[in-house]
Amino acid sequence: MKFLHTADWHLGRIFHQLHLTEEQSFVLDQIVEIAAKEEVDAVVVAGDLYDRAVPPPEAVALLDRTWQRIIEELSVPIITIPGNHDSATRIGYGSHLLEKAGLHIVANFDRALRPIPVGGVDFFALPFAEPAEVRAWSGDPKVRDHDTAMIRCIERMRENFTPDRPRVLVAHAFVAGARTESDSERPLSVGGAGTVPVDTFDDFHYTALGHLHAAQSVSDRCLYSGSPMKYSFSEAKHQKSVTIVEVEDSGSVSTFQIPIAARRDVRNVEGKLAELVAAAPVDPKRDDYLRVVLTDEGALLNAIGRLREVYPNVLQLERRFLTSGSNKQASQVAQRQQATETELFASFFGEVLESDPSLAETSLFQETLEELRRFESEKEAASQ
Amino acid sequence: MKFLHTADWHLGRIFHQLHLTEEQSFVLDQIVEIAAKEEVDAVVVAGDLYDRAVPPPEAVALLDRTWQRIIEELSVPIITIPGNHDSATRIGYGSHLLEKAGLHIVANFDRALRPIPVGGVDFFALPFAEPAEVRAWSGDPKVRDHDTAMIRCIERMRENFTPDRPRVLVAHAFVAGARTESDSERPLSVGGAGTVPVDTFDDFHYTALGHLHAAQSVSDRCLYSGSPMKYSFSEAKHQKSVTIVEVEDSGSVSTFQIPIAARRDVRNVEGKLAELVAAAPVDPKRDDYLRVVLTDEGALLNAIGRLREVYPNVLQLERRFLTSGSNKQASQVAQRQQATETELFASFFGEVLESDPSLAETSLFQETLEELRRFESEKEAASQ
Repeated sequence: MKFLHTADWHLGRIFHQLHLTEEQSFVLDQIVEIAAKEEVDAVVVAGDLYDRAVPPPEAVALLDRTWQRIIEELSVPIITIPGNHDSATRIGYGSHLLEKAGLHIVANFDRALRPIPVGGVDFFALPFAEPAEVRAWSGDPKVRDHDTAMIRCIERMRENFTPDRPRVLVAHAFVAGARTESDSERPLSVGGAGTVPVDTFDDFHYTALGHLHAAQSVSDRCLYSGSPMKYSFSEAKHQKSVTIVEVEDSGSVSTFQIPIAARRDVRNVEGKLAELVAAAPVDPKRDDYLRVVLTDEGALLNAIGRLREVYPNVLQLERRFLTSGSNKQASQVAQRQQATETELFASFFGEVLESDPSLAETSLFQETLEELRRFESEKEAASQ
Repeated sequence: MKFLHTADWHLGRIFHQLHLTEEQSFVLDQIVEIAAKEEVDAVVVAGDLYDRAVPPPEAVALLDRTWQRIIEELSVPIITIPGNHDSATRIGYGSHLLEKAGLHIVANFDRALRPIPVGGVDFFALPFAEPAEVRAWSGDPKVRDHDTAMIRCIERMRENFTPDRPRVLVAHAFVAGARTESDSERPLSVGGAGTVPVDTFDDFHYTALGHLHAAQSVSDRCLYSGSPMKYSFSEAKHQKSVTIVEVEDSGSVSTFQIPIAARRDVRNVEGKLAELVAAAPVDPKRDDYLRVVLTDEGALLNAIGRLREVYPNVLQLERRFLTSGSNKQASQVAQRQQATETELFASFFGEVLESDPSLAETSLFQETLEELRRFESEKEAASQ
């Protein structure tokens, strides 16, 4: 049995004020073609279908068209879940009726407990959820973090395990041991917690993960496919791909990556203004999305205008002496930009009260902040 | 062949700052029960499923649950279209795949041309569209109003007519000859145009209309089912209902209404404050949604507070001497509130230029305003 594993499509994403619908359409078409060529038995999308709870209509239309192509042109079933960027309620619309057509959108816990059998393999799909939601659903007051929430869900799934049948889990999570995040993922929880140990997934022969945008294996049977395109300049060096997974009846699993090409690449370019402008005419990829770091010293007149004349898609411009340098203030700013909310809280607390916050105070802060975020995202969704 | 005709559900509507989800759920459950009891062969919903392009998640969940009940519990197919309150793109999500399950959401013109056969009757369903969209789709530059747009669509449908087979059209339109609108419908076009003559529908044995909230027949085979609940105080005297339509093989049609009860009624109440407060304890329906018109003269202290102590859901409070009376300014205000945008334009034009606007000037105003509205609603949808 063979399936295609992808994740983090982020349809509707706006990148430096640009709508990416055409780039995303270009990428999703490749995924459909790969699924056809590899003759897979299923396509798995591990969350973050959309970039936000209420995506723009073009994103809705693109997702609809992609589902239709996979199901109708290829006759291949789809297994998918909402990620932390999606609204489970909105993603779940129609899901019950769509299952008949082979589109398995698992958007609630009760559905998550029942396996989806495809080609001799049982797929379990777990929608992304805040610990508080799992707490309410499971009735277990001890569920306070992503780790315990995941354990609780998998425990309940276990009742529907069939011995000697290969099992695949589809989940959207930050698994401990994975490499650092990119700039384009939204943290799953405040203060850097929220990781789930990799042995939580020991019951599964393969775990198809979403959330981190760099393709990577956390263990030999617990993989991130990564996003199919670059969503931040910190991903410039990624090789974007989808993962093809082959599952033997014995449960042994092998995987390989198939690269995905971008319509326009996302690149970092560094150099002196005059040199960069001079190099443009021979650059065959000068309409890539660029972050340019200028190494000139001294004043530069209309640098962005001069660059855009030759590189039309310069999205970000920096001067090296402004971002590096030994200037204390700049380095403090940079430190602060990298600090988590909890670190900022501790630093503020220390400045005001001249002592570190206690564990209870830190927890209280984190809970309040999580509640606030949840409230904000609900309010945002409700007002739309 | 027998079907249930309803329309204008307006899920997600906010009525005087109140979310109506529970009232709407109460009403939709009755519709499902009626469909079951009457053993209908189809349920038709003629547009305005939602109250706005981006409905709140509760509305999405309620619609999903209702579709599921009708299709899975009753095994009855659904035929529906977006209305002028809906976003066709959003409503159309999944529609192709959902047809397999018997949920026919017709959200684009090409699909609209193909009939949906149910029990020997051909259903044609036409999504609501601005004339500009029909103009672009049909390539006919002469399509400039709703009338011509409807004619052009029906002409194209005609190619798929089967002689001697009864035909039903599902549409969302303002048909000339229908009674005046309520306060809760959004005008289809600026300046009072936008009506479609009733003989446009002569080709159909029945036309199931949506848009006007009062149930009414424009002809004996062209009916508005009306909304299933009251969405404004101007609808207080409506008897809300669904329409059951029976179509004989010969094409002859008979209809009857089945009333829908509200969880809380929408009522206008008039009288002196003290009398109304005194009457409350014996009013079994004192938690209805009320618009209260007080007939007292002189100052009243905290009238809304005193009323809400006994009538918890007073949503609107008026003083009769403020709204009636022969006061010229008040009557001018009332006139202005009833005037169409085009009348307001003409009045403003007259005041400034001391002459009436020409026909060309009026048309230009109307086109500009329509364009603006379209732009605004697209911007609204895109930003959400």
